[in-house]
Amino acid sequence: MTELTLTTFDWVPEGPRGFVRDLRLRWALEEARLPYSIRTTPSRDRTFEHFEHQPFGQVPWLTDGTVSIFESGAMMLYVAERSEVLMPADPKGRGDVISWMFAALNSVEMASQPVSFLEIFSEVKVPPDYRKKHDAFLNERLEHMEAVLEGREWLTGKFSAADILMADVLRFVDEWNGLAPFPRCRSYVARATARPAFVKAYADQMAHFAAAD
Amino acid sequence: MTELTLTTFDWVPEGPRGFVRDLRLRWALEEARLPYSIRTTPSRDRTFEHFEHQPFGQVPWLTDGTVSIFESGAMMLYVAERSEVLMPADPKGRGDVISWMFAALNSVEMASQPVSFLEIFSEVKVPPDYRKKHDAFLNERLEHMEAVLEGREWLTGKFSAADILMADVLRFVDEWNGLAPFPRCRSYVARATARPAFVKAYADQMAHFAAAD
Repeated sequence: MTELTLTTFDWVPEGPRGFVRDLRLRWALEEARLPYSIRTTPSRDRTFEHFEHQPFGQVPWLTDGTVSIFESGAMMLYVAERSEVLMPADPKGRGDVISWMFAALNSVEMASQPVSFLEIFSEVKVPPDYRKKHDAFLNERLEHMEAVLEGREWLTGKFSAADILMADVLRFVDEWNGLAPFPRCRSYVARATARPAFVKAYADQMAHFAAAD
Repeated sequence: MTELTLTTFDWVPEGPRGFVRDLRLRWALEEARLPYSIRTTPSRDRTFEHFEHQPFGQVPWLTDGTVSIFESGAMMLYVAERSEVLMPADPKGRGDVISWMFAALNSVEMASQPVSFLEIFSEVKVPPDYRKKHDAFLNERLEHMEAVLEGREWLTGKFSAADILMADVLRFVDEWNGLAPFPRCRSYVARATARPAFVKAYADQMAHFAAAD
């Protein structure tokens, strides 16, 4: 078995630290106790090799021998298929985890992204009625999440790769206090980020970027 | 082998017809020539059963015996794993297709969604500098797509499930003329939507909703 290698930036400014997407993969790899190594790629002057592995010039990408994967969701699936800690092998359990993995990225993050735009570009004055439409779009999705999380510790019976993606997406919403009306979502994030694998992954990412300052 | 069943709304207004996400799956199932049947669920008064299968109250969902999948990306993966027409079985080819499937949903649709908001809510006056930031976000992603599509017919060597998702995402951008500065993206959409499987899937969805008028 070849070793999994995760490639991320050599350095990023303080703002995105703790949120660069290699964190999702570090977290998964720690949960599954799969051996992996970290490589870096320049954040300035992105190389030809970078675009060969990641056509949008983002990070991270994951290599395993001659296989190279990009997109946090695709890498998560690749890793999850290597460990029952992250995804069960039976068709029903696997279907549930994969459905929720896409839901995290394409139903929840899809809705949080427009709102995060408004937060990030807060210097731009946005008409209140427009802001309200954005918030309503996200909050409608979060209401469904709040209902789903009633009496449920994790999305699919036991902790899985889907929880890593969903908790990471919601964690970002929590940063600007967007989970205030959704106490179950908020405690779900707290529960997920209290896991030793998250704590280690987060500390490792912070140390990685700090070392390059 | 059980039969795949795709459940969609009984009726939708004219606006979204041709864009309801069961189209992506109909298209994939036609490409793969897998047998499937269509079931409906009420769009008004969504049922308890609906939320059991699709926690956000959206459509479609896919059932295969006791397995039930939601999210167009997850269903696409489920179908693609049943046909080499949609995804090769070797690890490298499979990794490429899965990377591009997530890229369509989480890198391109993620960026087109905020702009489509501005288009859909066009009655709301948006400050031009804010609109410019949204457009720049999408256009940066499309510039990368334009580079990727140079001399490439399909994303991964041969037509795959990734092309269905990417072409469907870009087709929506094309609707509001957002692909005008990106001729390769535009002809990629034209090439994909000229395929007999898309033509049939599109006609079937239009006929399905028209029949309920």
